Parts: sequence; C-alpha cells; structure tokens
Amino acid sequence: MARAGFTLGELAKLLQAQLEGDPGRVVTGVAPLEAAGPEQISFLIDPRYRDAALASRAGAFLAPASGVDLPGPTLRCSTPQQALIDLVLLFHPRTPVRPGVDRTAVVAASARVDPTAAVGPLAVVEDRAVIGPRVRLHAHVYVGPDVEIGEDCTLYPHVTLRDGVRVGRRVVIHSGAVLGADGFGFAFDGSAHRKVPQVGGVLIEDDVEIGANTTIDRATFGDTIVRRGTKIDNLVQIGHNVEIGEHCLLVAQVGVSGSSRLGRGVVLAGQVGVVDHATLGDGVVAGAQAGIRGTVEAGTRVLGTPARAAARARRIMVAEARLPELLQRVRALEQRLEKLAARFGEEPGGSAERG
Amino acid sequence: MARAGFTLGELAKLLQAQLEGDPGRVVTGVAPLEAAGPEQISFLIDPRYRDAALASRAGAFLAPASGVDLPGPTLRCSTPQQALIDLVLLFHPRTPVRPGVDRTAVVAASARVDPTAAVGPLAVVEDRAVIGPRVRLHAHVYVGPDVEIGEDCTLYPHVTLRDGVRVGRRVVIHSGAVLGADGFGFAFDGSAHRKVPQVGGVLIEDDVEIGANTTIDRATFGDTIVRRGTKIDNLVQIGHNVEIGEHCLLVAQVGVSGSSRLGRGVVLAGQVGVVDHATLGDGVVAGAQAGIRGTVEAGTRVLGTPARAAARARRIMVAEARLPELLQRVRALEQRLEKLAARFGEEPGGSAERG
Amino acid sequence: MARAGFTLGELAKLLQAQLEGDPGRVVTGVAPLEAAGPEQISFLIDPRYRDAALASRAGAFLAPASGVDLPGPTLRCSTPQQALIDLVLLFHPRTPVRPGVDRTAVVAASARVDPTAAVGPLAVVEDRAVIGPRVRLHAHVYVGPDVEIGEDCTLYPHVTLRDGVRVGRRVVIHSGAVLGADGFGFAFDGSAHRKVPQVGGVLIEDDVEIGANTTIDRATFGDTIVRRGTKIDNLVQIGHNVEIGEHCLLVAQVGVSGSSRLGRGVVLAGQVGVVDHATLGDGVVAGAQAGIRGTVEAGTRVLGTPARAAARARRIMVAEARLPELLQRVRALEQRLEKLAARFGEEPGGSAERG
Repeated sequence: MARAGFTLGELAKLLQAQLEGDPGRVVTGVAPLEAAGPEQISFLIDPRYRDAALASRAGAFLAPASGVDLPGPTLRCSTPQQALIDLVLLFHPRTPVRPGVDRTAVVAASARVDPTAAVGPLAVVEDRAVIGPRVRLHAHVYVGPDVEIGEDCTLYPHVTLRDGVRVGRRVVIHSGAVLGADGFGFAFDGSAHRKVPQVGGVLIEDDVEIGANTTIDRATFGDTIVRRGTKIDNLVQIGHNVEIGEHCLLVAQVGVSGSSRLGRGVVLAGQVGVVDHATLGDGVVAGAQAGIRGTVEAGTRVLGTPARAAARARRIMVAEARLPELLQRVRALEQRLEKLAARFGEEPGGSAERG
Repeated sequence: MARAGFTLGELAKLLQAQLEGDPGRVVTGVAPLEAAGPEQISFLIDPRYRDAALASRAGAFLAPASGVDLPGPTLRCSTPQQALIDLVLLFHPRTPVRPGVDRTAVVAASARVDPTAAVGPLAVVEDRAVIGPRVRLHAHVYVGPDVEIGEDCTLYPHVTLRDGVRVGRRVVIHSGAVLGADGFGFAFDGSAHRKVPQVGGVLIEDDVEIGANTTIDRATFGDTIVRRGTKIDNLVQIGHNVEIGEHCLLVAQVGVSGSSRLGRGVVLAGQVGVVDHATLGDGVVAGAQAGIRGTVEAGTRVLGTPARAAARARRIMVAEARLPELLQRVRALEQRLEKLAARFGEEPGGSAERG
Repeated sequence: MARAGFTLGELAKLLQAQLEGDPGRVVTGVAPLEAAGPEQISFLIDPRYRDAALASRAGAFLAPASGVDLPGPTLRCSTPQQALIDLVLLFHPRTPVRPGVDRTAVVAASARVDPTAAVGPLAVVEDRAVIGPRVRLHAHVYVGPDVEIGEDCTLYPHVTLRDGVRVGRRVVIHSGAVLGADGFGFAFDGSAHRKVPQVGGVLIEDDVEIGANTTIDRATFGDTIVRRGTKIDNLVQIGHNVEIGEHCLLVAQVGVSGSSRLGRGVVLAGQVGVVDHATLGDGVVAGAQAGIRGTVEAGTRVLGTPARAAARARRIMVAEARLPELLQRVRALEQRLEKLAARFGEEPGGSAERG
C-alpha cells in the first residue's frame, strides 16, 4: 500500500519544507534514526536524540527549521511533528474504502447503509441502524438496533455498539471496544441487589478515537457523552452518565466512574481512577495511577492516591522516602530531651511516646 | 418499545403509592429532575437534590412517603428507590424473547437449545451445549462445548463461554466478557515456564450480572465460583479457583487473584486489587484502588495500599499530607535542642540526624 | 476426553517416580487434597498442605522424593511440580486438531492455510494471511491481512489479529485478546490532537501465552515485541514499541506504556503500571500495583508507587503506619522543649511549628 518513492524535491514541496541537499534524491520509506537505511528518510524532532541522528545511516532527514547539521540531505520544517505525520501519510496513505456489503454480513432490512460504506465479512447490522457515507465496518462488528454512525468512521473487527448508540463523524473505534453496555446500577431491596434499568444512551462526538477493549456504558437516563476530539486508549472504563469534555486524552486502563464530569483538554495518564460524581476542570492533568475524587480545579496537575496538587504530592513522596530515618530522629530527640530534662530536674516521662 | 403513557392514577395503583394531585393526568416517560418536561414524571429519592426538584419542570414526581412539597402532582412511596425501578420498567418493559435460531447461527447437532430460547445472527453453539428456556444469545455469542445455561439468561453480543462453563438462571453477561479462559498457572522448569493444565471449570450461580469485557478464568481443578446475586462491573478480572460469595458488588477494573475467597455481601470499589489466596469476610467493603492481601475480618471497611482499616487509613492519609512540614518541625527541634544542650554544656552531635 | 484410568505402576513408569505401595491399584483422575476420593490421585507439592494431605481421602499421592508418610500409596518424584503437570496431561491430553476449514468460515482466496490447520466456524482469514501447520483458529477468530501464524498455535474464540501481526510457534492466545490495534500516539496541532500514523507491527515469538482481553498495540515504526517464552495474563495492556524480554510473567491488569523495555525473566504482579520509556533489567520483580518509571536495575525487587526497592519500600510502609503517632510525639516534643526552654530563659517560639 506504500508508494514506491518520492524525491526530496517532491517532499519539500508537499511538506512546505526547506531542503538542504539534492532535490533529485529518492527515498522509499520513513524509519526511526537507528533503523533507517540509505533508501529511507528519518526524523529528528526531539533534540535529545541528536547523537542518534548524527550516527544514523538514513538517506535524508526531517528536522526543525534550525538545529544541528545532520549527516545527509535535510528537510527543515517549522512544525516538524506535524510534518512527520504528513510524511508518514504520504508513504502510508489511508486505503480507500471499497464500498459494499460483504455477502456474509447480516444486515437487517430496515437498516440504512450508505452505498459508499463498507460492511465486512460476518458483520451484523440490526434493525433501523443508520451507517453513514464512507464508514468502514470491519469483520465481526456488531451494530445494534437504532444505532447511528456518522460519515467516515472506522470500526475495527469485533467492535460492539449496543442499541441506540450514536457516533459522530470520523470516529475510530478499535477492536473489542463495547459501547452501550448497561451502566452498573443496583439498589439493594433488603435481600438482593435489584437492577436499576439503564434506559439512556451513549453519544460519541466527531473525531473521537476509542481504544481496543475499552468499555463505555450507557446512561441510566440521558446520555453518557464523549465530546469532540477526545482520544481514549485501550482497556479504559467510562461509567454511566459520565461526560468527557473536548480534546481530552485518557491513557490505557483509566477508569471514570458514574456521573463524573471531565472538562476540556483533561489528560489522565495510565491506570488513573476517578470516583463517581467527581468534577475535573478544563486542562486538569493527572499522573499515572492517581486516584481522584471530588472537585479538581481547572488547570491543576495532580498526582497520587488520594490525588493532590503535583508539587505538594512530590514533596510528600520525597518526605515519605525519609520516613524510616525520621522515626529514628524523633526517637533520638526524645531520648536526648529526656536526658537533658533529667539533668535539670524536670520530671521524666513527659513525652507522648507510644511507639 | 416504551408504552405511550400512563395516568397518575394508574401509576399510583401499580406502584402502591399515595397520589397527591390529579389522577387523570397523563405522563409519557421518566426523566431526571433537570431533563424532565411537563409530559414526564421525575423523582426525588436523595434529599440532596431537593433544590433541583423544586426547580424541575416535570409534570409529576415520585418521592418518599414524607418530605417537602414538590411543584407538581406527587406519588409518595414507602420504598421510593424500588418504586422508581418499577416505574422505569413500566415505561421500558423487557422486550419479549422471539424464540428461534437465526438462520446464520451455527448450532452443533448435539447441542440442546430450548425451543423458547433465541439464538442471534452468527452465534455459535458447540457440541453438547445446553441452552435453557427463554435464554437470549445475541449476535456473535460463542457457547463452547458442554456449556450449560439456565433459564432466562441474556448473553449480549460477543460474549465467550469456553467449554464446560455452567451458568445459572437469570444471569446477564455483557458484551466481550470471557468466561472459562485458562487460569494463569505456570511452573518454571529451570529453563522455561511450563503451563500447568487448567482442567477445572467456571460456575456462575443464579441472578449474577457480569460486565463488558470482564474475564473469569477456569479453575486449575474444581471450579471458579461466583455465587448467587453477585454483580460484577466491566473489565474485572477473576482468577482461577476464586470464590466470590453471594450478593457481592465488584466495581469496574477490580482484580481478584487466584484462589482468593470473598464472603457474602463484599463490596470492592473500582480498581481494587486482591492478591492470591486472600480471604475477605462477609460484608467487607474496600475503597477504590485498595490493595488487599491476607485475611480481612468480616464487616471491616478498608482503604489504601496496603489496605488498612478505613479509620486508621484516613488518619495516615491526613498525617501523610503533613509530612513535609513534619520534617521541618523535626529539623527545627533538633537545632533548638542542639543549641539548648550547647548552652548547658552537653556534648554536641548527640542526635541521630542523618537527613 | 480424559482416559479411563491408569495403574500406579504405569504412572510410576511414565513419571519416572518411585512408588511406595500397590502398583496394581487404578486411579481414574487427579484432584486436589480436599476434593480427591479413593478413585483419584492427589498431590502434596507445598509442605504447608501437609495436614490436608494427612486428612485426604485420595486413593494415592504424588509427592517429593522425601517427606512425610502419606495415608496411601505414594509416587515420589524428584521434581514433583513438573511430574504433576505430566500427570494431569496423562488424564487430560491435548485433543488432536481436526484439520480443515469450517464451511461457515470466511477465508480469502489469497490466504494460505496449512492443510493440517483447523479453522473454526465463522472465523475470518483475510488476504495473504499465512496459517501454519496444526494451528487452531477457534470460532469467531479474526486474522487480518498479511498476518503470519507459526505452527501449533491456538487462538481461542474472538481473538483479533490486525493486519501484519506475526506470531511464532506454539503460541496460545485467549479469547478477546487484540493484537495490532493502533498505538496511542497523537500530536496536538494547536487546536486538536492529530493522529500519528501507527505503521509498525507486532511480533510475538515462540511459546508465548496471551490472556483473555489483553491488548498489544502495533508500533509506530518497527515492532512491538514479546519475546520467547513470556506469559501474559488477562486484561494486560502493552503499548506501542514496547519490548518484553524472554520468559517474563505479566499478571492480570498490568499496563506497560509505550517504548518501555523489559529484560529477561521480569515478573510484574497484578495491576502494576510501567510508564513510557522505562527500562527494567533482567529478573526485575515488581509487587502488585507498583508504579514504575525510569530505570530499574537487573535483579531488583520493587514495591509501591513510586516503586522503590522492596526492603526500603517495606520500611516506609511500616513507618507510614506509625505516622499519626509520630505527629503526636513531635507535638509532645515541641511542647516539652518549649517548657524546658522557658524554664531556662530561652526566647519562646523558636520552633518551626506550623501545624
């Protein structure tokens, strides 16, 4: 699927880059600094990898507008990270959708599948579902009754969208993700946990990406919502009635419990847990494994369980590391004070020592 | 699927509620306080939402037997949480099972599917499996050889029951759950980890609910057991030979390692981990992200890693927050004592200061 | 599938064991000490279960070469753990593969399926995939374009191998596992998170086992690698460009973030998190829920978040438990010192008390 090659002159033009070197030279692929050979173009975005770049056998480089001289022709870009994405897409273009419903797929008569959409082998599309233009449903995808999927979405093999889930445009959902399973709601009736019916839905806005085996539960009433541009990694759990703001990043194995609200641009690192009914303001950033409850003000960085402002949490962690010594120091202080007091005739045993 | 509407008089009778207001008024759905309009009935169960109730535009309310006057006709119930469940079920009744095996399902000749059961598109039922009355196997469900499923169970799309798994009555299993994968057992033979064959099974008793993408491993010998009435959320891991007692609640992303035992009515909040061979007595409650090992006495509430009795854990967390200051205070004490000692001619450096 | 029975004489020969007792006695199965009846053979590997063994009703025992007398004929073995595996496999032999492609499977014309391989119902094998000898693809397995699977692998129902994933020999992949989903890579362009194309692959070496609903992402460039003999439990997340060394054990719900490197024989207990770009040397062992960053030297045991050397982490945990008392002791010291100072005419308020 990758194109055979580009000249550096072509690439300079396509990427709006300044070329230092031979515009006629051809490269046939992109590779990282250590792996690239003379046929390939590599890249130096993060200056920490300068030494690897200087030692690289790559045939050409993509690099920031200013920086060290590299051992080969160099495309200099004002936004090298974005240019790298463009570069990779030139060599690995999105394969075009081959429209049509595979003969082994099972599509309900009342479903509406756009003629430009592709429905893969053994996919199931249930009653009244609506599949938009250029959508790809890969093999084994399940689309429940009354689901709506906007244009240009990709659902990888084994995705499940339960009944009534609504998905915007350009959404990518990876294999094994389950959207619209029942929220976890039970009321103890004195002898058993009785199920609270979960009659709400799930709403995924445009440009969201959802990782493999991630689960997003339907709301009790109303909708569980993931807003525009948010990216969710693998094995993440989003509880019922949660609302995730725009352009958030939720890294793998994060859990967000019922009815919590995340603002815009929130970043939760791996394995972070957010308890139910928490509120995280815009731009909150939480370090890996943090445990968050209550309200976190916009713009705060938090760490640890219970999550605390990052600077404070770090001071506590540093202090924790000194705890065993601290215990010894306090014991020594007590003994010394005891001696001193004894010398000056104070009554002994005045301390609260219980350890 | 929701019924068109009910009069408040009908609802009062069906819910055994006292009606304050016009029995002829019709409501067409249930909605939370903020979302409900004049056509809908809302509810006030938790008195904390009193202000939202007073501001609600709902056409009617369900509320406890006594409480504030609400701005509309009110159904007063002695057990409002249970009445709410009944109310929602009136508007959203369970759709009846449409018996029969979809023509695209693959059912082994030796399997026994009750004629009242429904087997969805592209489901697979293997040799000798037994599917009870009114069971629903949704699309893409896999039922392995020798599996037994009791009456009135629902298995949502993409559930996997490996060979020999036994499931009781009225069990609900959400999409992507895997029951009966091999337990994680290996013995190092000096050069490699050799697999310990996992020849046991999985037993799920009546009225259990299992969340999306949850995994429950088969036992090495005997059974991994989830007892009656227990509810398990999404992405939970239950290791081999674990036994979960009756009426437990396991919130999302909990992990219970091999051979651990949970008593009756245990509640594990999100992301709790239980190491192998632990024993949790009846009614143990563990806070989010707790890390549990060993034995926890019945009725104990625990928090933190390592998990400690909640009151104690909270005191430690509060103290932790003061650790950086504590270090300063101890340093100040040491300096002051040093000075005092010097003034009185004691030999210096007697403290255990190492920081 | 289990064989009807073996005489103890046969078993002694097959397991190269010393038999104490009647070689003609027949046993029909293996069971743990509490469950075994007179028809079954049980085992005592761990001397802690000595009392259970003495009370067991088992008809025979497998035990170490030396040890207590057991209440029945005993097969004494120099490596009893390995002998137990052999014993179980005698009663539960691996069922032979029944070669052939199920008529409901969907196999691309350009795929190459070895004639000795078995492709189950409703499995999908895409273009140019190569399925080796004696491979079992169970029902609902998805094998993407250009995937390669070596000989004697087993893929349980609902496994997904995305395009280009390469799997070695004798690899076992449990239900719901997803290999080759896109790595989590985005670059913020000032207004939105733009996807970094993930054009690398996944390489699984020989004798690896991968648990149910585990996810292993494809690399950005190059490969995400799991080396020979490594065993991965359920619900584990392996990020893009991670390399896991040979013979590691990753217990359930572990997460390893992008570009981290694990050496040979690393053991990560349940729910451990490894941040991105970390390096764990050979033989590192991490306790449950540890949070690891940076570099961990070979052979180190670590605990806690942030992960610290186990002995140190334990001392800190013990000290933490005494923190509330420590606060009281420091307060008492301050008061006492204040009094003492006052008595000797020092100016008051010299301490750093802020609490």
